[in-house]
Amino acid sequence: MSHNTFGHLFRVTTFGESHGPALGCVVDGCPPGIRLTLDWIQSFLDKRKPGQSRFTTQRREADEVEVLSGVMPGDGVGLVTTGTPIAMLIRNTDQRSKDYSEIEAKYRPGHADYAYEAKYGLRDHRGGGRSSARETAARVAAGAVARKVIAGVEIRAALVQMGRIVIDRSRWDWNEVDRNPFFCPDAEAAREMEVYLDGIRKAGSSIGAVIEVVADNVPAGWGAPIYGKLDADLAAAFMSINAVKGVEIGDGMASARLTGEQNADEMRMGNEGKPVFLANHAGGVLGGISTGQPVVARFAVKPTSSILTPRQSIDRNGQDVDVSTKGRHDPCVGIRAVPIGEAMMACVLADHFLRHRGQNG
Amino acid sequence: MSHNTFGHLFRVTTFGESHGPALGCVVDGCPPGIRLTLDWIQSFLDKRKPGQSRFTTQRREADEVEVLSGVMPGDGVGLVTTGTPIAMLIRNTDQRSKDYSEIEAKYRPGHADYAYEAKYGLRDHRGGGRSSARETAARVAAGAVARKVIAGVEIRAALVQMGRIVIDRSRWDWNEVDRNPFFCPDAEAAREMEVYLDGIRKAGSSIGAVIEVVADNVPAGWGAPIYGKLDADLAAAFMSINAVKGVEIGDGMASARLTGEQNADEMRMGNEGKPVFLANHAGGVLGGISTGQPVVARFAVKPTSSILTPRQSIDRNGQDVDVSTKGRHDPCVGIRAVPIGEAMMACVLADHFLRHRGQNG
Amino acid sequence: MSHNTFGHLFRVTTFGESHGPALGCVVDGCPPGIRLTLDWIQSFLDKRKPGQSRFTTQRREADEVEVLSGVMPGDGVGLVTTGTPIAMLIRNTDQRSKDYSEIEAKYRPGHADYAYEAKYGLRDHRGGGRSSARETAARVAAGAVARKVIAGVEIRAALVQMGRIVIDRSRWDWNEVDRNPFFCPDAEAAREMEVYLDGIRKAGSSIGAVIEVVADNVPAGWGAPIYGKLDADLAAAFMSINAVKGVEIGDGMASARLTGEQNADEMRMGNEGKPVFLANHAGGVLGGISTGQPVVARFAVKPTSSILTPRQSIDRNGQDVDVSTKGRHDPCVGIRAVPIGEAMMACVLADHFLRHRGQNG
Amino acid sequence: MSHNTFGHLFRVTTFGESHGPALGCVVDGCPPGIRLTLDWIQSFLDKRKPGQSRFTTQRREADEVEVLSGVMPGDGVGLVTTGTPIAMLIRNTDQRSKDYSEIEAKYRPGHADYAYEAKYGLRDHRGGGRSSARETAARVAAGAVARKVIAGVEIRAALVQMGRIVIDRSRWDWNEVDRNPFFCPDAEAAREMEVYLDGIRKAGSSIGAVIEVVADNVPAGWGAPIYGKLDADLAAAFMSINAVKGVEIGDGMASARLTGEQNADEMRMGNEGKPVFLANHAGGVLGGISTGQPVVARFAVKPTSSILTPRQSIDRNGQDVDVSTKGRHDPCVGIRAVPIGEAMMACVLADHFLRHRGQNG
Repeated sequence: MSHNTFGHLFRVTTFGESHGPALGCVVDGCPPGIRLTLDWIQSFLDKRKPGQSRFTTQRREADEVEVLSGVMPGDGVGLVTTGTPIAMLIRNTDQRSKDYSEIEAKYRPGHADYAYEAKYGLRDHRGGGRSSARETAARVAAGAVARKVIAGVEIRAALVQMGRIVIDRSRWDWNEVDRNPFFCPDAEAAREMEVYLDGIRKAGSSIGAVIEVVADNVPAGWGAPIYGKLDADLAAAFMSINAVKGVEIGDGMASARLTGEQNADEMRMGNEGKPVFLANHAGGVLGGISTGQPVVARFAVKPTSSILTPRQSIDRNGQDVDVSTKGRHDPCVGIRAVPIGEAMMACVLADHFLRHRGQNG
Repeated sequence: MSHNTFGHLFRVTTFGESHGPALGCVVDGCPPGIRLTLDWIQSFLDKRKPGQSRFTTQRREADEVEVLSGVMPGDGVGLVTTGTPIAMLIRNTDQRSKDYSEIEAKYRPGHADYAYEAKYGLRDHRGGGRSSARETAARVAAGAVARKVIAGVEIRAALVQMGRIVIDRSRWDWNEVDRNPFFCPDAEAAREMEVYLDGIRKAGSSIGAVIEVVADNVPAGWGAPIYGKLDADLAAAFMSINAVKGVEIGDGMASARLTGEQNADEMRMGNEGKPVFLANHAGGVLGGISTGQPVVARFAVKPTSSILTPRQSIDRNGQDVDVSTKGRHDPCVGIRAVPIGEAMMACVLADHFLRHRGQNG
Repeated sequence: MSHNTFGHLFRVTTFGESHGPALGCVVDGCPPGIRLTLDWIQSFLDKRKPGQSRFTTQRREADEVEVLSGVMPGDGVGLVTTGTPIAMLIRNTDQRSKDYSEIEAKYRPGHADYAYEAKYGLRDHRGGGRSSARETAARVAAGAVARKVIAGVEIRAALVQMGRIVIDRSRWDWNEVDRNPFFCPDAEAAREMEVYLDGIRKAGSSIGAVIEVVADNVPAGWGAPIYGKLDADLAAAFMSINAVKGVEIGDGMASARLTGEQNADEMRMGNEGKPVFLANHAGGVLGGISTGQPVVARFAVKPTSSILTPRQSIDRNGQDVDVSTKGRHDPCVGIRAVPIGEAMMACVLADHFLRHRGQNG
Repeated sequence: MSHNTFGHLFRVTTFGESHGPALGCVVDGCPPGIRLTLDWIQSFLDKRKPGQSRFTTQRREADEVEVLSGVMPGDGVGLVTTGTPIAMLIRNTDQRSKDYSEIEAKYRPGHADYAYEAKYGLRDHRGGGRSSARETAARVAAGAVARKVIAGVEIRAALVQMGRIVIDRSRWDWNEVDRNPFFCPDAEAAREMEVYLDGIRKAGSSIGAVIEVVADNVPAGWGAPIYGKLDADLAAAFMSINAVKGVEIGDGMASARLTGEQNADEMRMGNEGKPVFLANHAGGVLGGISTGQPVVARFAVKPTSSILTPRQSIDRNGQDVDVSTKGRHDPCVGIRAVPIGEAMMACVLADHFLRHRGQNG
């Protein structure tokens, strides 16, 4: 079946195709009395919006959000949530479906085309339909609301690897993230990426990336073991983003190389009655529950398969064909995954804040 | 809150602590008319059972399963499912709670002790209570039922890395997996691991591992985009296993290094009316839907923090303490995660088989 | 919390307030390949639409539906579902919020005003906000899609009681239902109701009603015991409609007066290999599963408390006040509940069709 | 499919057949730190237990509950919940399957036999299998835990009608409920029922009943509109009980006869800063949210179809047969539904307490 809702108490349902009239979301379960502005929501959509630099797709979408329900005018300025479902709508404006007519019957290798058709018996081929990354705009709108639900928590993400270029963590500077078109926290690596990605872009090729998402000030105790563990829900949330193939918490896959002595994040009693951890291999989650350390997650985004170089494939009639994609696409879809990763972190944490409060007061 | 159910149509609820009277599960939504035997279920539990070699905990548990409901006697032999909930019970027999009295008030670093107490205000300290890996026995029992639901699918797992020892994939032999105590598909690596892990075990230390799970003969079309994607549900399922810190589908984190040309799994029309894929970077999942290729996933298991070397920590009263664990533990918990990984793959696939059939007939 | 989704495989999420910009729904899990037209959906909305006769609210709403996603153009005419979420939007056009300014701080007795404010700490007072019956337009749109999912099933509803006027079942004629403004299957009772309701309307009063919903051609076997029984899901679905206070299946509350001999619906073998039932006290559901008989349910709708006669109440500041409502309202909200009851029956049955197919093939 | 879980944060999963080895439940999401005793749980099971008087089935079941998980020894006495899933087990001891061999192939009219076989293709005929009222013992155990979660709320139920005998509400005395074998609050009606039911019992017949459940001290604000309304969840909960065919909140079906003037529960400001309601037609729920008034619900239980008088039916082979049931059965199953109704009310309220706290703090 299709299943377009996630979250348990803070629940997000999204809808919409790349080339239909609109996309959007319904955020249900949001606490009442939370103050919001349209500008706040729009600011996150603008971060994800296509066409911000030469390194993202040149499709032009205003991505203007309209809030249809769940809010009242606040006293004086802005909006206040009422506790009822918040529907948000984003109209598509620059669909250019003709770009896709050529691939109506062809399955783009590495894309969801064949899988969708195998599942549903038909597919909306225009721009990937529901499988398009355009769907993620709705997640970003929901994430903007989620941030307000957990106002004390700070959520930031950065691109830490692009193809063979890996950042130097000793140069990590959060301020740098908004100064380059890659959301890269290492200025030097960002300069390298610029040259590197220009080459890829001009060749009509594409490249993968790794995004790191960090949530500071998450209180200890969030998470719903055993099957609603905080890290399990984060893993699902990140893996559900288009093109993601791997998810890590803390040391992630590298944990396999550690000994027990290295891996144990030692504790000492801090001055504020909370433990001080001497390391964070666990990424802020133990037993599926937040420990009060920063929650640290990473996910890998594969390169888009929409490239100029012809690749071998088949079509709906079972004929061998070659496919090359001439539509407007991102040379590194990982870049725009940065605000999406933040949004998913925000939604998962908001949900677990409410779930924890439900059971534990 | 706690949340101890997973799956949507094939739904598994588990319960039980390490040192309580029993643990078990309720499998709901299983199709009727499926033939089962107790021996079948027991065979998988025996694979996960502690004490099978000197490389796993010496706790002695028979792990004998009792089926309490949801089945009738089959015609002649075995059992047949009735479509009602299948409850399975495993009594604990070798609890030895005294081993744990020393750590009642101490938080073991790298364990869930502190997090559980931060969440719930109290915790069952005996053997880790609910956070113990003993809970996974219930998953294995559920997985045995799940395998019968998707009888045509073959699910196998193997340990592909232990600490610094990584297998050579050119030597992969599934038959080898049952011939060494590590479920390792590379006989040569297995011999290395034996020496390596003996050293770790004798030092009272521990080490991490990577498990690979492969499902063959999964039909194209399973998965429930956008938030019930097959890979998203697998990511949550594997991440919910104790000590797992990373999950990969197909090329996983390494996808970040690929170009679009490398990453696109090209297709040609095969003789049986199905596409032949020329590569499987995607791990059998595109757009969150199975493609008909083998579904390939990996997860990293961190080393247990239950080690002899004292580590710095705090206790419930906010005092600095040192902790070393003398209870019986696994030097490499990743080994016993192999049958658990298979079980989770089986449960997720069974669920998606039913979900797909629900929407698409 | 708020919880605005129902259904398990055929899942409906609604949003929108009476006096906000729009309301609508997202229908998720709909099978692909189903043919629909806008006219089809609109025809059910028109049945529920206000202002159809002098016996319903004079608010003027076009209730024009826009389908935003989840469909493609069909071959030639109409639309075809793609299996992805179907979002439907209905703009509000005749809000007249000023009518409600007087009751901003007052709690209308018998309304949800006080309860909403007790729950959320604030409320959208304009027209009842989310608690308004306008929300049900979204259900009717979803119901129109649901009917196509279970195309062989015929779903009809009728008003069988208004205040003290109860229909004579021997005069039941389904054709009559569309010939009077009450959806009443008994022409003679309908004539009585016309006089009766005119009196109530002119007095600025209101009156309750009972609606009966019948589904013919439901196959035996739908329902998900024990907690997803077909009748339990129907009970929740009908009770969730505004102003409903009672739900009955088959003989309903009158079952309490029957003996076992009277109550047992006897069976004989029919000619088509299916049993023939000699009675239908059970209303087509036994053990929570459909039997192949018509599914028969009834629900009682209380009179709206929006009446001209002043009633005692309090306001937000804890002062005693008198309240009378001068906004446009229905003298008998039960009338417009007829298409809503049909829609809920359709959605519940569509969901159980898919759920049954998921488990049982 | 089968679906044996209910509740959202306070989640109950039950399992077990009438004539299998055991039945039980898993209660998930229970807050930690709640004190319980086995005696407390057992006291409710004893109320529901068969064989308490000559008016209930003579099957002898100890119905002794064992708590398998989710609790620790309390300080000194009793148990304390840990926040993890609480599994409770009740062994069957007096199955006497031979009583049922005769009806293995026959469908008892008015029972779930035919429906189960139509759904699943097979059925566990022994004592009705999963459709037996024995399943409700598990609900009662869960309800005992739920009561502790909402310790301030008082939940009581009573039998208010048996066949043609309806109580006189002016004689309602809660103390009377435990003094007669019918849980009847009207001593005079109880005496009538004794004679009446003896006649039915001796004739091998059966009769229906109506149960009323009242929850006092429910705070205003519980309920999750629009589809998790408090009354909608109650309707589903009661309708899921065996043999229930109608559910009412407040005035229920009689609401159809009321005018708006009669129906509006007027309010005046009380001394304690809370409104005083001058009537309770709404049964304590408006807009799906509790108002602070007593929550009042009723449900009708049909008579069991297990009677001595032969009834027409068919068998598995499509042959016409006559069926009469000689197994041990209740002449009025409604009696034992009293503690079950209380348990369902307790579980639903506990769930909504936690859900409300999740969203609204």
